[in-house]
Parts: sequence; C-alpha cells; structure tokens
Amino acid sequence: MLNKETITKRFKSIQDSICERLEQCDGLATFEQDLWERDGGGGGRTRVIQNGNVLEKGGVNFSAVHGKMPAIIAKELGTGDAQFYATGVSIVLHPINPFVPIIHMNIRYFEMSNGVKWFGGGIDLTPHYVVEEDAKYFHEALKEICNKHSKSYYDEFKEWADNYFYITHRNETRGIGGIFFDRLQPTDDYSLQQRFEFVVEVGELFAPLYTTLVNKHRNKPYNEANKAWQHIRRGRYVEFNLVYDRGTKFGLETNGRIESILMSLPTNASWVYNHQVTPDSEEEKTLKLLRKGINWA
Amino acid sequence: MLNKETITKRFKSIQDSICERLEQCDGLATFEQDLWERDGGGGGRTRVIQNGNVLEKGGVNFSAVHGKMPAIIAKELGTGDAQFYATGVSIVLHPINPFVPIIHMNIRYFEMSNGVKWFGGGIDLTPHYVVEEDAKYFHEALKEICNKHSKSYYDEFKEWADNYFYITHRNETRGIGGIFFDRLQPTDDYSLQQRFEFVVEVGELFAPLYTTLVNKHRNKPYNEANKAWQHIRRGRYVEFNLVYDRGTKFGLETNGRIESILMSLPTNASWVYNHQVTPDSEEEKTLKLLRKGINWA
Repeated sequence: MLNKETITKRFKSIQDSICERLEQCDGLATFEQDLWERDGGGGGRTRVIQNGNVLEKGGVNFSAVHGKMPAIIAKELGTGDAQFYATGVSIVLHPINPFVPIIHMNIRYFEMSNGVKWFGGGIDLTPHYVVEEDAKYFHEALKEICNKHSKSYYDEFKEWADNYFYITHRNETRGIGGIFFDRLQPTDDYSLQQRFEFVVEVGELFAPLYTTLVNKHRNKPYNEANKAWQHIRRGRYVEFNLVYDRGTKFGLETNGRIESILMSLPTNASWVYNHQVTPDSEEEKTLKLLRKGINWA
Repeated sequence: MLNKETITKRFKSIQDSICERLEQCDGLATFEQDLWERDGGGGGRTRVIQNGNVLEKGGVNFSAVHGKMPAIIAKELGTGDAQFYATGVSIVLHPINPFVPIIHMNIRYFEMSNGVKWFGGGIDLTPHYVVEEDAKYFHEALKEICNKHSKSYYDEFKEWADNYFYITHRNETRGIGGIFFDRLQPTDDYSLQQRFEFVVEVGELFAPLYTTLVNKHRNKPYNEANKAWQHIRRGRYVEFNLVYDRGTKFGLETNGRIESILMSLPTNASWVYNHQVTPDSEEEKTLKLLRKGINWA
C-alpha cells in the first residue's frame, strides 16, 4: 500500500530529473543546492539556478516536513493537536528572454495523524507575451494527462487555476493559467494510489513541456522595450506571490525558510506609475488575454 | 471649532507645498497630477514624480473620501452601518542615488457619523546605507516637534514605528524607523485641535527634513555594486508594503485606486537568492542597524 516514504522518494526523484533536464536545456548554469532542516521536524533540498544561458533565476525545491500541526493550519482544518507530514516539489523559473514564459509547478502530499491524506498541486504558465499557439499547446498537454486519469479533472482544475492565479486588484490573471488542484483525497472513484499516479504524471510532464517552450523561443531577438515590459510583468508576479499566493503566505506566517519560499521572486522587477500599453501592440494583445475562462484546449 | 473642511483644506495645502519644495529640490522633474473619483464618494489628487535629477519615482498623494463604511472596517471597528469621512496625505519617494534614503510620510484624519474622530500618521526613513549621523539628525528633528506637543509622544510613537515598520519574515526593520501613530482622539489632555496642530507640524516638517538629507548625499558618487544593493533593499521595501503595510492591504481589499496605492513601489527592485553581505562592509553595517529599539535621538 502507498505510504509517505514511497511518495517522498518519488518526489525527490522528480526533483532530480527536472534539475537534470533543466541544466541540459540551459547549457550553462547549474543548480546550487542548500540542504536545510526545520525546527520541529524535517527539512528540504532547495536548488536554485541563476544567470544561465536561458534561465535568469529559478528554484526547484523539495521539502519533507513533519511534526505538530502549526496552530494556523490546525485552526483552519479544525484538527486540534494532530501531527502532520507534508512533502512536495515546488518550482518557479524566470527566463532571461522576454519571449520565454515564466513557469510554476508544484506537487504536494499532506497527511495527518487522524488518517486524512491528500494531494495537491498545479502548473501554470506566465508568458510576458502571450502566444496563442503556445497557450493551446500548453493546455492541450495538461488536458491530455488529466484525461488519462479522469474525465472531470481538466475542466475542474483549469477553472480552479483561473480562479487561483488571479490578481484581484489588477483584474487580470497572472498568466494563461493551467491546472490547480488541492485536497485530492481517496474517494470511491479514486484510490490514493490513483491520485498519486496523476500527481506524478504532472511532475513528469513539467520538464518536457517547459523545455519545448524554452527551445521554441530562446533565440528570438528582443530589445530594451521587451525587457522593460518583462520587468513590469514580473512586478505583477511579485504582487501575486506576496499578496495572494497561499503557499507563500503560509510560509511567511509559519516561519518557513524564507530564502526557499522567496526564490520565486525575480532578479529584477519594475513598477511604472500608471503604465499604459500602446494600442494594437503585442503588449496590449497580451493584456487582453490575461482573463479567466478562455478555452485554450 | 475644528471641522473636516478645515482639516481637508490644510492637508491639501500641505500637499501643494511639499510638491513645490520637492520640485525645487529635484530641479528637473515635475509632478504629474491625476484627479480621481471614488465610487461611493470623494476622490483624490495623485501626484507622481518620475525620472528626475534626484528622484527616480515617488508620489505625494492627497485624498478625501467618504460614504458608507466599507464592510471590512465596520467589522473591525464594530460600528455597523456608520458613514465615514477620511482625508490624508501619503508620500513615498525613491531616489536615484543609493546614498539618498527612501522616505515615507503619511498624515490622515478619520471621522464617523457616530461622532468618533481621530488622526493618524507617521514618518519613517529607509536608507539603503544607514548613516548614523543622519539617523540621529532625523530622530532628533522628530523628537523636537513631538516634544512641543507632548512629553510622551516621541517615545511612544518611536516605539510604535519600530514595531510597525518591521519585516517579520526577515527579522529586520524596514529602515531606521521614525514615528508612527494612529487613532489619536481628543482626550482630557489633548483637544482635537491640539492633535491637529501636531499632525500639521509633522506634515510641515517633511519637506525640510527630507531635502536636507537629499542635499547632503545627492552628489555622492556610487558604483554598480551600490546600485545592486539599493535594488535589493528596494525588494525588501516591496515585501513590507505588499505583505504588511496596513494602508496598502486596506486599499487592495477595498478596491481603492490601485495606481495611487502602488505608487509606493520602486521603478526597479531586485531579489537575489540567499544574498550575503561581505563581512565588515557598509552593507553589513547597515543590516546590523536594521533593528528595533535603537535610541537614535
């Protein structure tokens, strides 16, 4: 029967293989690893890549932590003094070339001493310039693996991502979305093993999906205006992560390892007062596509 | 008797005189004004300066809004369906030269239809490089005006600022603090008029205080390493404003004018994974001084 040791081991090997494939793709930079331990139980392997050929900054982090439930979650879940175990892989990559998208992926497993177990995760893409063909490719790949596991997964998790990766105060989505899911428990229809196989497939899809998009755009020439726009879009990414992202907020509130949590923030981000895009520009086209409910696949 | 019209008019004139003095000091850039109206009542004059000789980006904003209390404040204050009136001036300035500090100032007045009235505000300084002499000068100036109004103001409001302008997840203060105060109501010891006179003096101190520090450092040469450090410190400023600042959070949650609220964010900010300062460097010295409880005055 599936247990946390098996899940943890598999998540570690997913981190390994993703790092290997990203290093091959980048061709210059390699991941720097920091091992850390958590007061209260467990720890992680933070791996950060910086100043590569393609990747300006990013992290592929693994952690497996356990102990007494932090008060803030115990309260939310109404579980009292339970013990918990949580493991996951979490990725954010910021490329140098503005025509290569930012990407985020996360897979996670959580169990409590009261017997509750679930998986969560997601992948979403944040192009500085939305290319409709890429968005279709990205969503179709996600839909394909979702469909292998459940007819309802894609529609449900795509909508969840639209709602989750949303910058309310800007009235715009963070990017073109993807899938997001949480608290996938075993049910009559899906065993824990089946939930696990789905989550593993999400993890394994990440590297081929992203490197395809990287390789498509990595050599596209760009100018200062494209970089300036990239930095403004990164500013929105910072806004999302610091204001809304549950994982980030949770990490900050529970005294998590700050450098691992905030590895998601870019080397450079920019804010320009009341920035307006030029009518009919690529930037304007992108803004028009940063909304919920677009049926990409 | 002091009324909201008098307070509003005075706050507007403080905005005018600060903008005038900052333009004189900068010598190149001028403020661009956007007038805006609030659905539900009132509006503001947002004034932003960008790409000057000294000032890279900043805002000196005035607003006066009124109407039905937003649900979120009504809940916090337990006031039910009261009407409110709020007016204030809010400033953040990001200089180009890393040896010139970032500054923030805010004065505000709030009243409700149930008769409750109060003032709030504060000034705090965020040097990229802490200069002890400047910190002493800054705090002594604040202490001097506080002492004119109350023997207890400086100690109380200085401690309040230490606690308020604190980046918990970094275990560091935003800068060298200053004063912060809120809900200054009329009491047996202080009339509303006396509270007002204190707040006006805080507003009037701002321009001479900041331009003195600007003029002291504006011509100091700096290099790429100093700029890189400035951008990292600005990253911390972004973290504070998006994660902790009550005014920012309140504005985002109550659908305020986003461009006016987020004018506080810098043109460029940077995040470097696990950045470490060189031992015995100026950067290390600064980090050691970013803590609560330093008795500068």
